[in-house]
Formats: sequence, structure tokens, C-alpha cells
Amino acid sequence: LTAGVVVRFLKLTVAYDGTAYAGWQQQRRRRSVQQQLQEAWERITGEPARMAASSRTDAGVHALGQVVSCESRTALAPHVLQRALNARLPEDIRVHEVAEAPTGFHATRAAVGKRYRYLIQDGGTPDLFLRDYCWYLPRELDVAAMQQAARTLVGQHDFASFQNAGSPRTSTVRNLRELTVARRRDERADRVVIEAEGDGFLYNMVRNLVGTLVEVGQGRRDARWPAQVLAARRRSLAGRTAPPHGLFLVSVACDR
Amino acid sequence: LTAGVVVRFLKLTVAYDGTAYAGWQQQRRRRSVQQQLQEAWERITGEPARMAASSRTDAGVHALGQVVSCESRTALAPHVLQRALNARLPEDIRVHEVAEAPTGFHATRAAVGKRYRYLIQDGGTPDLFLRDYCWYLPRELDVAAMQQAARTLVGQHDFASFQNAGSPRTSTVRNLRELTVARRRDERADRVVIEAEGDGFLYNMVRNLVGTLVEVGQGRRDARWPAQVLAARRRSLAGRTAPPHGLFLVSVACDR
Repeated sequence: LTAGVVVRFLKLTVAYDGTAYAGWQQQRRRRSVQQQLQEAWERITGEPARMAASSRTDAGVHALGQVVSCESRTALAPHVLQRALNARLPEDIRVHEVAEAPTGFHATRAAVGKRYRYLIQDGGTPDLFLRDYCWYLPRELDVAAMQQAARTLVGQHDFASFQNAGSPRTSTVRNLRELTVARRRDERADRVVIEAEGDGFLYNMVRNLVGTLVEVGQGRRDARWPAQVLAARRRSLAGRTAPPHGLFLVSVACDR
Repeated sequence: LTAGVVVRFLKLTVAYDGTAYAGWQQQRRRRSVQQQLQEAWERITGEPARMAASSRTDAGVHALGQVVSCESRTALAPHVLQRALNARLPEDIRVHEVAEAPTGFHATRAAVGKRYRYLIQDGGTPDLFLRDYCWYLPRELDVAAMQQAARTLVGQHDFASFQNAGSPRTSTVRNLRELTVARRRDERADRVVIEAEGDGFLYNMVRNLVGTLVEVGQGRRDARWPAQVLAARRRSLAGRTAPPHGLFLVSVACDR
């Protein structure tokens, strides 16, 4: 790299359909979203790219507004980079914005808030157009009981019970600022939408919260049970991990 | 076939995502929905199947409620057939119902009404989750003008101007009982939904009606222009044929 070329920090806002990918992170043999973005970037700028994302979404998980950071020496304008990336990326990954970011911007470290959404179809014939985008459960869920249970989980707590092994963190305390459950009816299917917003989430935390709320919605557990699971701080007590394909990373708030 | 075995007539209600198929009809080299259904049927019943559909949807066109007829000597109950078909069919084809039909039932001849829906996203960033399910147009459409134009096309008319070559019919007169244009806003995208219901549709008629209404919505043509196209009975005057992937066959009404 030539001395004197200015290093820029860029912030990309990216949407993707996670169905065809091993997740955000680069894997040895399987296609990842990171790999697709980095390869497109390298072809456009001629420089190796090393990108970081705010959320390392798992295989099958989707994103409406993932935030990605990239350090670069390219002189191309943000909107030119956006257009060039979208021209080279597969149709299931779209760059919604490219913007200049402050020196040192790193998407993982800058994230101070994340919003996730989880879709469930409960009852009826499985909507084939949602086969990759929601968790199908054959029987109707008790949404009122799920709402009651969700309220007991909101706030700053030690969420160790809702963390899967695989990504040890220094602290398992997080501030879950919002956890809502709502029913949406449309002509084709009944859906239950769960939204979670907080300062950060442990590994598989949203999917474990969903799996636990579903046990309440199915009547297998009382609405007070999730609060007991939370208090126990033991993963083995929580419900099953909900499948990945119902989960969407909606948006990320960065501190600068 | 054994003499004395009773011939049954069955009516299947089928949904499919048309993205991966050459359309309903069997083609020499490409996968079709008909071929998938017939192959599954033959594996389940051991008898060759010859199915007919109410609407021969084109490649890329989707169905929420296609009606399919099948003549059979199987003794299996309708709900057993349904379950066995869904177990064998690919995930993008689902059988919603199998029912006994009157002797001689033929889905093409029995259809007395069809409802189609067409989805458009106008403006904003293309919603990648709708890439196979709607027509993306970069600029906002004038829905009021499209509604005004749509009203002039409703009724019993000679729709020759809206028929593509390829499927000559004896008569080009059809009764278009409903043609509505509505805007649906949701958090992610602005959509325009066009619904058409009538006693029958000529080849590509819905997509030609949509293409013509879009020219009005884009301000290239006056809201009175589609009625002039209709009156002229010449295909060359109408708007372009809208792409197939925004089109859904919603339901079919049969006369018995």
C-alpha cells in the first residue's frame, strides 16, 4: 500500500436472506455473507478487505439492517461503492447504505443496541411462501400468556440461562429493553411476532427466549416459569432453541 | 387395470412457489409443477396419473389455490392422499386439500371464476425478500389514476387487446367482474396490489392489464387510455406484459 494514501473507515448497512449461507462469518467450506461482501469489495477496489459485523448471525438467520465496518484506502465515493457492490453481490444480499464513519469505527465494538424479530406461524396449513422465514407450529399459541411471561424478562438481568455454549463472554448481564409478543392476522396465515431490543445479546439468546416463550404459549409451562428460569441462571432449564430461519436482525444502533 | 375397480374423480387444491418451475404444464426438459404432482401421485398409487389444472400458469407465476383434477382407481382416502403427496412433493409445492369430485370432473372445463393478484413494489430499496414475488419499479405510482383506469375495464368486453399470441381461443370476450388497485404500506416497503376476478382470462391477460395500468401509474398515459386500448381490440396498443414473478393465482371457482 502506498504511503500517504488516506485510510478511510466505512459503515455499510446490509440486508440479506440467510437461507443460502453458513451465517455471517467466514467458514472454511461453506459460503458466508462476509465472504460474499469481502470478495465483491476486493474485486471493486483491488484491495484485500477485512470486514466486521455488529452481529454474527448464524446459518439461516436473516438481516434487514446488519451494520458492517470496513477499513479501506479506496478513493471511490460511498454511493459509487454501494452501486458497485450491489451489481456484484448475489440477489440475496443487498447493501442499503455506505457511509463514512469516524476513524477507528468497528461495527462489533460500536454496537450499543440491537433489535431482533422472530416470526412464527401457529396453526393452519404451513404458508409455503414463509417456509424459510418463520417457525411453523401446528397449534395456536396463547399469546396473552406469552405477553405476560415476556414482561417478566424485560430489564437488566443476568441472562446466563438463555445463553448457549460456544461463545463465552466476560459478563452475561444484559439490558433487555423490550420484549413484545403480538399476533398479526392476514388473509393467508396467523402469525405471532416476537420483538426483542437491548444493549446486546448472548449467543442464541433471542432464539432461547423465543423457545421458552413458546413453551408458555403451548400451555406446557406457566407464565411465571420464564422468570424462574432467568433467576436460576442455568441454561439446562430454559426451553429449546427456536430454529434459525424465523429470526431477523432488524437494526443496530452504533455509538457514533 | 382390473375390471370392476371403481374410477374416482378427485379435486386437488394446490399452492406453489413458481420460481423454480417452467410453469404448470409439463415441458420436455424443464421441471414443471404438473410433472412433480404426477410423479408423486404415481409413486403413491402405482398408477399413471394424468392431471389437468384450472389455470396453466406460466414460468415464475405462483399459486395460492390452483385447482387440479385427477382420475384415479386408488382406494386411498382423500386425507391419506393429501398427506402422502405433501410428504413426497418438494417444499415449494403444497397440497391444501384433496376432495372427491363428481364423475367427469375436469379442472380446466369446470372453472367458472378465477381470481388473480399482482404485487408491485414502487420506490425505495428493492425488498430482497420479495425479489421473486413482486415487480420492482423504482418510482412511486399514481394509484388514484390507476384506480380510475381500472374501473373503465370492468365488465363484459372483448379483451383481444390484452391477449398475447400463443393460445388462440374461439372467443376473446370475457367478463372481468373485478379489477382493483390498492396501496399497502408496511414498515419495509410500499406495495401496490392489483386484484382481478372474472369468468376467465385470455393468455397473459392479467399481466397485460397490469402493464397497461402501470403506464397510467407512471404518468406516461392518461387514465382514459386503457379504455381506448380495450375498444381498439389490437394487442399492439396495450402496455408491456408485466413480469411473471409478481403474479399469483389466488383461487378458482368450479361449477360443481
